[in-house]
Amino acid sequence: MRWNGWGDPSRAKGLPLAVRTLLPLLLGRIRRPEPPVALDAVQLAPSALTADDLAAFRAAVGPQHVDDSAESRIRHAGGRSTPDLLRRRQVEQAAPDAVVRPSTHDEVRACLDVAVDRGIALIPFGGGTSVVGALDPERGGHRAVVSLDLRRLDGLLSLDEISGEAVLAAGTSGPEAEALLAAHGLELGHFPQSFRYATIGGFAAARSSGQNSAGNGRFDAMVTGIRVATPTGDIELGRAPGSAAGPDLVRIFLGSEGIFGVITEVRVRVHPIPRGRVFESWTFPDFAAGVEGLRRVAQHGGGPTVIRLSDEAETAVSLAQIGRIGKALAKGASVVTVYEGERIAERRARVSAHLASAGGSSAGEGAAEDWLEGRFDGPYLRDSLLDAGVFCETLETATTWSNLHALRSAVADALTRGFAEAGAKSYVMCHVSHGYPTGASLYFTVLAGIRSDPLTVWGLVKAGANDAILAAGGTISHHHAVGRDHAPWLAEEIGDTGVRILAAIKRELDPAGILNPGAVIPLERTR
Amino acid sequence: MRWNGWGDPSRAKGLPLAVRTLLPLLLGRIRRPEPPVALDAVQLAPSALTADDLAAFRAAVGPQHVDDSAESRIRHAGGRSTPDLLRRRQVEQAAPDAVVRPSTHDEVRACLDVAVDRGIALIPFGGGTSVVGALDPERGGHRAVVSLDLRRLDGLLSLDEISGEAVLAAGTSGPEAEALLAAHGLELGHFPQSFRYATIGGFAAARSSGQNSAGNGRFDAMVTGIRVATPTGDIELGRAPGSAAGPDLVRIFLGSEGIFGVITEVRVRVHPIPRGRVFESWTFPDFAAGVEGLRRVAQHGGGPTVIRLSDEAETAVSLAQIGRIGKALAKGASVVTVYEGERIAERRARVSAHLASAGGSSAGEGAAEDWLEGRFDGPYLRDSLLDAGVFCETLETATTWSNLHALRSAVADALTRGFAEAGAKSYVMCHVSHGYPTGASLYFTVLAGIRSDPLTVWGLVKAGANDAILAAGGTISHHHAVGRDHAPWLAEEIGDTGVRILAAIKRELDPAGILNPGAVIPLERTR
Repeated sequence: MRWNGWGDPSRAKGLPLAVRTLLPLLLGRIRRPEPPVALDAVQLAPSALTADDLAAFRAAVGPQHVDDSAESRIRHAGGRSTPDLLRRRQVEQAAPDAVVRPSTHDEVRACLDVAVDRGIALIPFGGGTSVVGALDPERGGHRAVVSLDLRRLDGLLSLDEISGEAVLAAGTSGPEAEALLAAHGLELGHFPQSFRYATIGGFAAARSSGQNSAGNGRFDAMVTGIRVATPTGDIELGRAPGSAAGPDLVRIFLGSEGIFGVITEVRVRVHPIPRGRVFESWTFPDFAAGVEGLRRVAQHGGGPTVIRLSDEAETAVSLAQIGRIGKALAKGASVVTVYEGERIAERRARVSAHLASAGGSSAGEGAAEDWLEGRFDGPYLRDSLLDAGVFCETLETATTWSNLHALRSAVADALTRGFAEAGAKSYVMCHVSHGYPTGASLYFTVLAGIRSDPLTVWGLVKAGANDAILAAGGTISHHHAVGRDHAPWLAEEIGDTGVRILAAIKRELDPAGILNPGAVIPLERTR
Repeated sequence: MRWNGWGDPSRAKGLPLAVRTLLPLLLGRIRRPEPPVALDAVQLAPSALTADDLAAFRAAVGPQHVDDSAESRIRHAGGRSTPDLLRRRQVEQAAPDAVVRPSTHDEVRACLDVAVDRGIALIPFGGGTSVVGALDPERGGHRAVVSLDLRRLDGLLSLDEISGEAVLAAGTSGPEAEALLAAHGLELGHFPQSFRYATIGGFAAARSSGQNSAGNGRFDAMVTGIRVATPTGDIELGRAPGSAAGPDLVRIFLGSEGIFGVITEVRVRVHPIPRGRVFESWTFPDFAAGVEGLRRVAQHGGGPTVIRLSDEAETAVSLAQIGRIGKALAKGASVVTVYEGERIAERRARVSAHLASAGGSSAGEGAAEDWLEGRFDGPYLRDSLLDAGVFCETLETATTWSNLHALRSAVADALTRGFAEAGAKSYVMCHVSHGYPTGASLYFTVLAGIRSDPLTVWGLVKAGANDAILAAGGTISHHHAVGRDHAPWLAEEIGDTGVRILAAIKRELDPAGILNPGAVIPLERTR
């Protein structure tokens, strides 16, 4: 992973000509920023760990797996939100005091013991793709903070082909998990945009949703069991697919983002690798008609593997990216559908009937195929935009179908207004990436021509958007999770009693408060 | 509800001749028990509530809704497990000190305040159909215990037809909910055997599964939101169908059986009343072949509304009940399938292909139709068996497909051995009522000719069966829940860290420990 941007530098791509042409029209004159700082020019405070601290961690994981080099510390200094990337462009940066890499559950347990004994905060770190500040090097009042890099906990630990269940070590990345399963003809089928880097444990800890979740379910729904090392004891959960044995405690760790314990193993549902894949894109006269189409599919059970709807603004820019901006398509909203696995023709016929009944027209395979091919590449585009001085970030929420349009307007207005107040022109795009029987997600991408101090401007704009989400009845996150960025709004969403529940679990499992301080619940509520 | 048995006395039925003929063959000579005690012959300890206590509750809910009559107290003395019914046949009985009937969330809140102020335990009471001791009048160290009857919290509070969501008051019974929704052309479609009496809040609190859960999902999956009054504050949860806003706190209250708070409102997913219904029953050479058929359907997505498999022993007795014991059917295992709603022919063809590929043969509509007609009547049969001196009880568990046969053998052996050690012949039947992609439930019905003290004998046999479930990797309950009867085994299932989590939530929300003491977690772990 590029240290100050996304992914594999060799895959990075410049801005397509059509986009470069479009940007000044949308955002006005854009000021090219200073070039980013070089890795060896970054200034870090010296590590706060003592020689004894380092020795204790070395005893836990082996001497070669404790690393306090500047490069490692910088590479674990945060996630991949736009603010993270902007911070990586600064000379002075905050970073954890060291990176520790356990390779087994027992080594994780040993690291927790060292951290508790010595009063050192630990930030569990998987693929490093958080976009909500879950990896900020926050000490939470402790004297030092260590990034607990879990990538060495990898592999397929067991496989039950009859039941269709696999146990994966938590640090296994998306592609590694699929390769291990593919050797048995099986697939997990979870493809968030972070797929190439994010880990199985991260998917669980952050309640990930993937691009194929229409067909395969959210990651929540794939998890059948979990093993967690907490500072005060281990726990293994998930005995049976259907249980009424008290509250489902697996759900306490899904979404816990490392504040209760470190997820070391995840048992997941797997299925045979689907044979065949069919694409179809659709156009709708407008976003509202597209929403109606997606609702019919979600409520009447069509069975697409992927279904997503881009609004007019996103449709236009997507087409610009692939050089088709002039096409008639650009006048409305667009839907991508993909079908994989069994009974494709039957499912496609059913979905098509629902989409047509809502005013959609089939637009062939091309746009859907293009989407699939580029589906993990969005973050590369963001790097190019940032290099060009264009601010670009995403945020997301979800609500019921009946509230979807009101929520979309409220958020779009808050974004546009927020940027305008900072004197920046902006362009707001929206898509629906996930539909459920009772509602759907809304995913916003914003471009803005921020003239100076984008971190401060975005902080204000994003706060306004979060306020608008809660005021309009949305959830503060559909799949990006909470981290530190959303913690104050989570507290509002679940109310005082909800925060007290989370804080009580936190105090019970992590009384010293060493685990990911300030993530999920505001720091002051966990004391 | 009959005070000492099941349901509507006018629907009670005697034992069919074939069953009466069969019983001595299966269980040996059976001793007819003493006739049950009459309601007015039951002896209760006087209510421990003071005049001030009663006045405080009257102020909370209105004078006519506080009832300390012997009849009301006895009617709230427990649930409907066989031990409950055997206790109802005794002269001396334990009962709550009064019954209090709030009608709104705010009145529930007021009752909680009275109970906390005065140190009185509260047992939330819906339809009274618990079979796991969740309604035992346990004081938990307090000076009195009150049954908080929630049946007056009823009605459809709001309906969102676009999103397919309804908010129901927690005390609404299954039939009432369906009638309210049917007025809008909608259905909830949750039909546990307790359907005619159990409440929406009870379904949520106990993580109910219904007979149509193959098609409509477990009750867990239907709940999109919840409102709860806890002793230390209210909470409303469930903003969106997909959320990554921290752990899903709704899941802390599903399965909480009233120990954290009183569920007052439940938001559920609803769907149009299905048109059309098709039945088909199947026979399999043996139970193992039937399991393979159900697994293929669950993993490859057939889409039945109901699918269940009875083993050879249950198949034989079911046929005896309807006078068909001589039929060839009785030689193997049997499967019932029901299809409701859209695309029935297509779904049936798919399921049929899976069942046939596993060795099943279609056996027409008859048996499936008979099953549907009698599906809520099992508990009436139990009353008749108890009257005839035959002990009859059920228990259930779930596990992965690969572990299903080992678990079934372990539980069946434990039951048979346990009764044999008590000198009782027994007959153990089993069915699979719910299949999931990764596993299935096992539901056991046992008949035994216990000569004396059936409560003690069953206590020992059931403990042995519970031990066998956990040792063989099953969950302590698939849908009956935990109550007090399963609490020690739940503690084993989730381990010390799991119990500490539940106890921490309990202490935070109910520091005085007034709510359903001893349910879910053993009493000594909540202090």
